Amino acid sequence: MQIMDQFGAAPGAESVRMPDGTERTLAAEHAAAILVNEQPAFRVVCTPELLPQLALGRLLTEGWITSADEVERVAVCAQGLKISVQLRHPLAAAEQAGQEVPSCCTDNLTLASPVQLPPLAPVPQREIPAAWVDALADAMGQGLPLYRATHAVHSCLLLRAGKILYRCEDLGRHNALDKAVGCALTEGVPLAECVLFTSGRVPVDMVRKAIRAGVPALVSKSMPTVQSLELAEEYGLKLFIRQKK
Amino acid sequence: MQIMDQFGAAPGAESVRMPDGTERTLAAEHAAAILVNEQPAFRVVCTPELLPQLALGRLLTEGWITSADEVERVAVCAQGLKISVQLRHPLAAAEQAGQEVPSCCTDNLTLASPVQLPPLAPVPQREIPAAWVDALADAMGQGLPLYRATHAVHSCLLLRAGKILYRCEDLGRHNALDKAVGCALTEGVPLAECVLFTSGRVPVDMVRKAIRAGVPALVSKSMPTVQSLELAEEYGLKLFIRQKK
Repeated sequence: MQIMDQFGAAPGAESVRMPDGTERTLAAEHAAAILVNEQPAFRVVCTPELLPQLALGRLLTEGWITSADEVERVAVCAQGLKISVQLRHPLAAAEQAGQEVPSCCTDNLTLASPVQLPPLAPVPQREIPAAWVDALADAMGQGLPLYRATHAVHSCLLLRAGKILYRCEDLGRHNALDKAVGCALTEGVPLAECVLFTSGRVPVDMVRKAIRAGVPALVSKSMPTVQSLELAEEYGLKLFIRQKK
Repeated sequence: MQIMDQFGAAPGAESVRMPDGTERTLAAEHAAAILVNEQPAFRVVCTPELLPQLALGRLLTEGWITSADEVERVAVCAQGLKISVQLRHPLAAAEQAGQEVPSCCTDNLTLASPVQLPPLAPVPQREIPAAWVDALADAMGQGLPLYRATHAVHSCLLLRAGKILYRCEDLGRHNALDKAVGCALTEGVPLAECVLFTSGRVPVDMVRKAIRAGVPALVSKSMPTVQSLELAEEYGLKLFIRQKK
């Protein structure tokens, strides 16, 4: 996989004057289009870093690809407005482009996917030592500069063999998770050996993303819903709820 | 406006056994399609109450309608899976159905609106007494049964003339706000005299919703982004950040 990133990154936060006259550091929103084989696929609004990783992670967690091997090239334009992903194969068009597909509470403007998405598959089973879960919970608040500066972003940590490999931050919990997954994809880290930690809520949308990512476990500060608990059990994804200490 | 609701509501939370054997109360996710003039418009995943209000609020805050007067009928089917909104006028089709429109970090699968959305308009200006903002912040944690039971949902309060009229809860901050706005629409409460409180983050998507709702002020526990602060200033929306006491 080739990554041609002409944009790189821009600061995720800026210092601004608030209406009450105080100076505050606020998170910055950046909008970009993800194209797959030249076809518009997703619109993302995110903090302006790790754009290739965000695109790769998004494609995996939404079912457009099942491994990084399917990707020939990721190209980000100089302004960071277009992230073009070229696959090694054509996209399989959905049989009914107008059909309604299940969505999630926060992606709820979507009515259909233009591509044929494969069914969810069970995640690999792996013993998760309690120390790994503790390590993730303990790591909250450390090494998360955007949260420390703004107190208004989500984070996602990716842990392998007890060690935290990536700490990604973004405006939304979906983007943060996709960035962490995308980091693993670009560096060839086997997701089947990883655990994800999300700072956000865990409704069905987040459980589905973790299942698509193929990780054995998802740790969160927040409670799941009835349906996300059921979905996790159905596909063997271990859910851990652990508050920050 | 006629509301024909054959569904009503279902419990927003259920008691379930967790993987560790404990009994917990978790929020319930419910999926429904919102149709406008028979055309699929939105897919929502939400807690299963206030569905007509959610649909009405969503249409207003996304720019599909500008007042409840445009709505002839809202019909919810017996299973709560379809919310059909019949307008008094045909929908104006977007000039370029394939065009990309700005989206938000959490609605980021959307590529285009099938209808022509009017531009944002400035919100009405109104003096907001500090006591109103305090009342909203103080009300957090009171009268929010779903949050108290699950600790995993968002809320939105609507205040008029210093008095809290609606307390809406949902899985997502967008839905909670749309339900509160929809409550005002169904009961003829003038939104120009109201203040909204959201328990969630306030990126551009939430500021845009408040501007479309036509409220003079939005109160939040959380910081805005650089861009949402700018958008609020451009359209005269007052933003207040007030932590729960």
